[in-house]
Amino acid sequence: MPAALLQADKSFQIQDTESIAPAEGQVRLEVAFCGVCGTDLHIFKGHMDRRVAFPEVIGHEASATVAEVGPGVTSVEPGDAVVVRPLDACGDCAACRKGFGHVCTNLNFIGIDSPGAFQGSWTVPAGLVHELPGGLDLKMAAFVEPLAVACHDVRMAGLRAGEAAVVLGGGPIGMLIAMVARATGAEVILSEVNPKRLELARTLGVAGVNPVSEDVPAFVKEHNGGELADVVFEVSGAAPAIAQMTHLACVRGRVVVVAIVPEPAKVDLFQVFWKELKIIGTRVYEPQDYDRAIAMLADGSIDPSPLVTGEYPLTRVDEAFDSLSNSPDHMKILIDCRG
Amino acid sequence: MPAALLQADKSFQIQDTESIAPAEGQVRLEVAFCGVCGTDLHIFKGHMDRRVAFPEVIGHEASATVAEVGPGVTSVEPGDAVVVRPLDACGDCAACRKGFGHVCTNLNFIGIDSPGAFQGSWTVPAGLVHELPGGLDLKMAAFVEPLAVACHDVRMAGLRAGEAAVVLGGGPIGMLIAMVARATGAEVILSEVNPKRLELARTLGVAGVNPVSEDVPAFVKEHNGGELADVVFEVSGAAPAIAQMTHLACVRGRVVVVAIVPEPAKVDLFQVFWKELKIIGTRVYEPQDYDRAIAMLADGSIDPSPLVTGEYPLTRVDEAFDSLSNSPDHMKILIDCRG
Repeated sequence: MPAALLQADKSFQIQDTESIAPAEGQVRLEVAFCGVCGTDLHIFKGHMDRRVAFPEVIGHEASATVAEVGPGVTSVEPGDAVVVRPLDACGDCAACRKGFGHVCTNLNFIGIDSPGAFQGSWTVPAGLVHELPGGLDLKMAAFVEPLAVACHDVRMAGLRAGEAAVVLGGGPIGMLIAMVARATGAEVILSEVNPKRLELARTLGVAGVNPVSEDVPAFVKEHNGGELADVVFEVSGAAPAIAQMTHLACVRGRVVVVAIVPEPAKVDLFQVFWKELKIIGTRVYEPQDYDRAIAMLADGSIDPSPLVTGEYPLTRVDEAFDSLSNSPDHMKILIDCRG
Repeated sequence: MPAALLQADKSFQIQDTESIAPAEGQVRLEVAFCGVCGTDLHIFKGHMDRRVAFPEVIGHEASATVAEVGPGVTSVEPGDAVVVRPLDACGDCAACRKGFGHVCTNLNFIGIDSPGAFQGSWTVPAGLVHELPGGLDLKMAAFVEPLAVACHDVRMAGLRAGEAAVVLGGGPIGMLIAMVARATGAEVILSEVNPKRLELARTLGVAGVNPVSEDVPAFVKEHNGGELADVVFEVSGAAPAIAQMTHLACVRGRVVVVAIVPEPAKVDLFQVFWKELKIIGTRVYEPQDYDRAIAMLADGSIDPSPLVTGEYPLTRVDEAFDSLSNSPDHMKILIDCRG
């Protein structure tokens, strides 16, 4: 089966590799589609060289069909359509013992720390596999993983119907958060510098504001009956957005830190004190977020198809990464991993 | 009755003023004791000149006896021992409508925005008066207000028995938070630069660490079975403590911002994301925090007497402020306002 091996020099080599027979508690999958994540792009650009052992098969936003099950696996059977929650926790650290395996100290993030889904055949722990309901398109199912991130963020925010939410940053995760927030019944505003992304947001029922040319707090108040937002999602990682995030939330509002902000950043803590805000850190997802993401795709409350801006066969994965690197208008590129 | 009027030049003038008869819904109190708060010192030093209209009677940490009740007041009667929750909310702003009158947009903080308790006779809204149980010493009852701040902070943190808490900054509020956290059943560590305050903390059953000479994260782990803290209270407002606060909390830990941090400060948001922390802003108190503070003093679970480092009659309030300004070892000074 073909596999795209990312080399230390950041080129992909397509190789025909042997399928790995599933051991006890494992399943072997035939990968259908796998989305390219911002993290994959970081790996491709060399930002995560200390963590990734090259050559490596990356990719973790996959849909697949079960090909074989290992001894003892009864949860799925060959032919089942599935997705993989790529978080292989140790089960033994303090986070795991508290029930937060998704932020396990010794986490094996499959597709980063161990072989991922940019290949035809993929062998993974059966416990990380979620079965898909009949009729859910495998192409759309490749959105389960990033959509589960959005579901986790919205759930951690405690966002309720009728509340107002602002999303800072309209990349794929920001856009999916906006969509989940809309589907939850919130009024949603996206703050984003790219006009094409703002236009896309508007077609999804999300009001758009450009923080470079517009007064975002005034825009929020104007669209929310004179009040600031109940929830602010900081998805941009940009210093001006981080400086602004606490100014956009109302009394007892929640500010969700979704972006990875590698260096300490200036936060207006006076706003946090004065309005009794909560700043909530969120990372990846828990099993119930996968369940909700699958349900939202299956019942049509989320249609991610407008986010697909490119589709490439596995043999042309290098072109996909080049295109994503070079165009800020890209949203989600899917890789077709079928033979 | 005597009143200490703080002048625009930051001197106190003791004047004999007319008592103000209570209007409908008001009570007139004879003030017993009133603590000097850090905010009073800020006003004294001219940091809050834009907010305070001089000459003004300041002071808001008071215990008192009811002297007269205005028409319609049935909740208390002359002779009752009381304390005043000095937050006079408008009842009409968005915060008030949501039930968060303590952070009312138009808040009249009695003792800052309107006449306070450094006087013999004080007329206030009856709805802000909490009756004291019999036997509670009026001197100790002057601690209800700052103790209610601590009760609010601990409640907002959701601190539970058996958890580990770190308090950054051992002034009166930090010390009271440490005491309430101890009384809640938590293990408590105080990080503080002043050796005298560390020594006081140790006598209160709180482990002390000096962040200038010791490794605070290592100290926390050593005292907590290898784990970081469940809750961190940032009470210092100091940049190094703010930079460190997210490094001291465990996975899903809570970091409570108690200090007033006037300028944007660098926060390590990567820690917030990576460990899914919550940063929780807290300000003053709600009525139930007053109730808990009174109950904790009444049942002896908190004895604030070790925090009293000075006591002055109202006529010598200027000496009290000078002493507090000049000695970093002071904790709480009480003003005896009885005639």
